[in-house]
Amino acid sequence: MAFVATTAAPDDTRSRILAGAARLFRRRGFAGTGIKAILTESNAPYGSLYHFFPGGKEELGVAAVAEGGETYRQLVEVFFEHTDDVIDATRRFFDGAAELLEATDFDDACPIATIALEVASVNEPMRAAAAGAFDSWIDIIERRLARDGLDPERAHGLAVELFCAMEGAFLLARTTRSSTPVRIVGSSITAGIQRAITHT
Amino acid sequence: MAFVATTAAPDDTRSRILAGAARLFRRRGFAGTGIKAILTESNAPYGSLYHFFPGGKEELGVAAVAEGGETYRQLVEVFFEHTDDVIDATRRFFDGAAELLEATDFDDACPIATIALEVASVNEPMRAAAAGAFDSWIDIIERRLARDGLDPERAHGLAVELFCAMEGAFLLARTTRSSTPVRIVGSSITAGIQRAITHT
Repeated sequence: MAFVATTAAPDDTRSRILAGAARLFRRRGFAGTGIKAILTESNAPYGSLYHFFPGGKEELGVAAVAEGGETYRQLVEVFFEHTDDVIDATRRFFDGAAELLEATDFDDACPIATIALEVASVNEPMRAAAAGAFDSWIDIIERRLARDGLDPERAHGLAVELFCAMEGAFLLARTTRSSTPVRIVGSSITAGIQRAITHT
Repeated sequence: MAFVATTAAPDDTRSRILAGAARLFRRRGFAGTGIKAILTESNAPYGSLYHFFPGGKEELGVAAVAEGGETYRQLVEVFFEHTDDVIDATRRFFDGAAELLEATDFDDACPIATIALEVASVNEPMRAAAAGAFDSWIDIIERRLARDGLDPERAHGLAVELFCAMEGAFLLARTTRSSTPVRIVGSSITAGIQRAITHT
């Protein structure tokens, strides 16, 4: 099960712009990414950005958050829905995330966390897109834990804990250039899920 | 014990610029904050920014991260060093953070997380400043847990878990405009610390 949250190389201009923008937003944030850099990154002609995204950078931002959120949702789904053992799935999810960070020089973690923090207080459409994405990931884990016998409130609580541990560890790992935080919280969350399931 | 991580209103121009910049960076991120907005926010004359910060916005960014990190370190210290009961301290720390989010319209959480994610892959001096700040907070909690009888590795692991849970919950709380994630992880981390201390 590969920990890859990027879609195949897109062949049309709109998808290329979206993928290029998403890559830059993830690395440098939304405000730090200029239109020109997006066009260069996506190898798209100047007029095409406003042709496909008449609302300009904000419309592109909302679309990039939605796309990044959906791609990561599918990754979470592969690990947590299509698997027999949720404890093993949790362990492998965090291990995969740690390995991806190491392989990408601590660059590739959550596709939308940077942009979510940037816009939370200042851009309502982008904030709402990020909130929808986060909720969709938590929802998958929550449903999976409920299937393993946890009551709804406990399943929701544990899913939120997993999400927060992961995002906090991504922040610490990228900032300190070490994957150790991801491995530490991965062990702890795995043990927490094991404890919760054993006690049902 | 008040959960307030802002210094008193500074009276000299340099401190005013620094405090104003830190406020804007926290809300809108580093790249999203222009020099003009910083001068307006801090009520400072145009030439003063480059007078006090000849390195311009990057120098101001490093100083703001260091200042925000130190102010928050003092807050963590008040809760975790100068207190008898670490379990009660943990509970009150997360409760205070949740209340501050509610009182500030989900605006005021970690002073440097946004900027840390923005710069992690693209600005080494600012990344290093953020890493130093995060490590200093974790260090306080780790030392406190060691004092309560945990072995060094366990104390470090739990301190990292607390930090990651807090930061992930801040991201989710700000994005979804709800303090519930902070309360969920607060309960869970408090219980984890209680379990660890009871088992020593």
